[in-house]
Amino acid sequence: MQWIYPDFEFKPRRPLFLCIISNTDTGKIPGISAAGTSPELTDYTPGADAELVETNSIITMPELPEAPGGSPTPAIVTKAALNLSGIPSLFVASGLRKKPAIPYVEMGGSAGNDIRKQRALDDVKGIYERSVILGKKLASFSDCVFIGESIAGGTTTALAVLKALGYDGKVSSSFAINPVELKIKVIEEAFNRAQISEGSLKGDPFRAIAEVGDPMMPCALGLMRGLNRSKVILAGGTQMVAILAMANAIQIRGDISIATTKYIVEDDSANFVEVVGSLGVPYYYSDPGLERSKFPPVQIYAQGYVKEGVGMGGAALAASLYGVTQQQLVEETDRVLTTVELPK
Amino acid sequence: MQWIYPDFEFKPRRPLFLCIISNTDTGKIPGISAAGTSPELTDYTPGADAELVETNSIITMPELPEAPGGSPTPAIVTKAALNLSGIPSLFVASGLRKKPAIPYVEMGGSAGNDIRKQRALDDVKGIYERSVILGKKLASFSDCVFIGESIAGGTTTALAVLKALGYDGKVSSSFAINPVELKIKVIEEAFNRAQISEGSLKGDPFRAIAEVGDPMMPCALGLMRGLNRSKVILAGGTQMVAILAMANAIQIRGDISIATTKYIVEDDSANFVEVVGSLGVPYYYSDPGLERSKFPPVQIYAQGYVKEGVGMGGAALAASLYGVTQQQLVEETDRVLTTVELPK
Repeated sequence: MQWIYPDFEFKPRRPLFLCIISNTDTGKIPGISAAGTSPELTDYTPGADAELVETNSIITMPELPEAPGGSPTPAIVTKAALNLSGIPSLFVASGLRKKPAIPYVEMGGSAGNDIRKQRALDDVKGIYERSVILGKKLASFSDCVFIGESIAGGTTTALAVLKALGYDGKVSSSFAINPVELKIKVIEEAFNRAQISEGSLKGDPFRAIAEVGDPMMPCALGLMRGLNRSKVILAGGTQMVAILAMANAIQIRGDISIATTKYIVEDDSANFVEVVGSLGVPYYYSDPGLERSKFPPVQIYAQGYVKEGVGMGGAALAASLYGVTQQQLVEETDRVLTTVELPK
Repeated sequence: MQWIYPDFEFKPRRPLFLCIISNTDTGKIPGISAAGTSPELTDYTPGADAELVETNSIITMPELPEAPGGSPTPAIVTKAALNLSGIPSLFVASGLRKKPAIPYVEMGGSAGNDIRKQRALDDVKGIYERSVILGKKLASFSDCVFIGESIAGGTTTALAVLKALGYDGKVSSSFAINPVELKIKVIEEAFNRAQISEGSLKGDPFRAIAEVGDPMMPCALGLMRGLNRSKVILAGGTQMVAILAMANAIQIRGDISIATTKYIVEDDSANFVEVVGSLGVPYYYSDPGLERSKFPPVQIYAQGYVKEGVGMGGAALAASLYGVTQQQLVEETDRVLTTVELPK
């Protein structure tokens, strides 16, 4: 049964699933992000996602990261896909405040600021340049790198950057009802503070990141620049669309595509297909079939709660290349959810 | 002209040069280490070595790391070998206090304590287990991993662990006149504090590390355990001999060998060949030919100053597999030394 659209013809010899983990205080604005049951816990969410994928346990956070409605983090789907396919993972910390208790690549940088109140980032070029170095290294080892992300609040900064670059971006959200109005209000405040307007930073994505972006962004761009000998598949929804727009602006070339979930592609409040199409980049999406989970909090992914994150759609695509079926992914996701170890 | 002994027949397809960077306060005991012109700077030395190799510049330390007599860090030879061969490098921080401004893998853990005064490490098993995870990942990507180290004071903790395991270890030093008596005195004080004696921890290398070792050690052992599908070449002198002894005690198997410099093998005060031979592990060494450098501080490497470090001997061996000659290595070492950028 088909569950990857359209067909993906490339068979990687040495794939790598990489995930950038970052923090931004923009994610702590009440109502903006669903990652973490309280704004305070959002700092811990990316690290906990990494711990789950690397060790099947949560170590540095008191509970499994979850979204409203009780849905667990999409890291469970990513973990299931990687378990079934045997594809190795690598987490890269860029501007991450709370570090996970697993091996990860440290890219440095500070957590992003609340974009309403001050410049988002001080060290955009530093993170970018270090990420280029890492990308070049990884190109020696992997012919196909999936790049996902975990950063609470990241869709808001993605929308802000898209608008600063002049795209009519709408973004998805981990809430079923997308708090678009709140995001727009945050972005308006940020644009006023930074004295920028829609499209005013069209040719200057680095300044857009510095003013209204987040630390995941320069890391993703640097990796793409460094990886140009390898196939790069951005694994995510609107946040990765913003990365594509920025990469286009600074002429990052190569074999670049984007993979996400059916839940993002079908999200009426976002315009994933439109923006990706305008950039001329191939896109793929997987239908993880989570309505067939035994657990209601996972079933409701298919109703639009938790549409993406931790590269879930790309990880599912990657697993499919190794013959993993949708049914296997659903069952393994359920198994991961029921076996993950939590702190005592 | 031969400069690698004995011949090395294996030709890696995807080699990786990995270097563990760590700190121990044992390295701050006056007279113990030559890495860093003052005890305070020893914390910065490993990170500065990493910066030099990754970027050809020193970023977080005020000066080029150097040894007494004005010799520059062996990282310049490692850098030269990697430049000429194109072999990718990866630095892994384990118990590192001062972090470099380059991408590196963070393994966590605290810097080691002064073994005279308190237990060396609290989290030996944690570092080991995280390193196993990393080793398994790297085994997917590289068929041949060189593992070097940069930790000031590491030969003293290596000797302490060797003695605790019951080996009649003598160790080399980055001083031309090996301060063996000082090292022995430090180790005696440490053994008294820990209430252990020579050979009393024969079957228990983890406890030996916890009492009198350093944070490089559990990282190297974990990597070796995780990498068992790949060829592993420990790149170093006596410190890597201690790793071999510990690996033997916990029955880490695989295609394991050790590579160092002629300066270590010919060091009368150490018994590299003897201990490696007793462990039944193949060894290789390179003659970097540094007496032909244009710069006296580099020439004196060949007189026994700065015998090893930052995996210099293994990096030279690795470069030779790609056709690099001794003369090219000397010239490139001189070029690195004269072009490295220092902080303004």
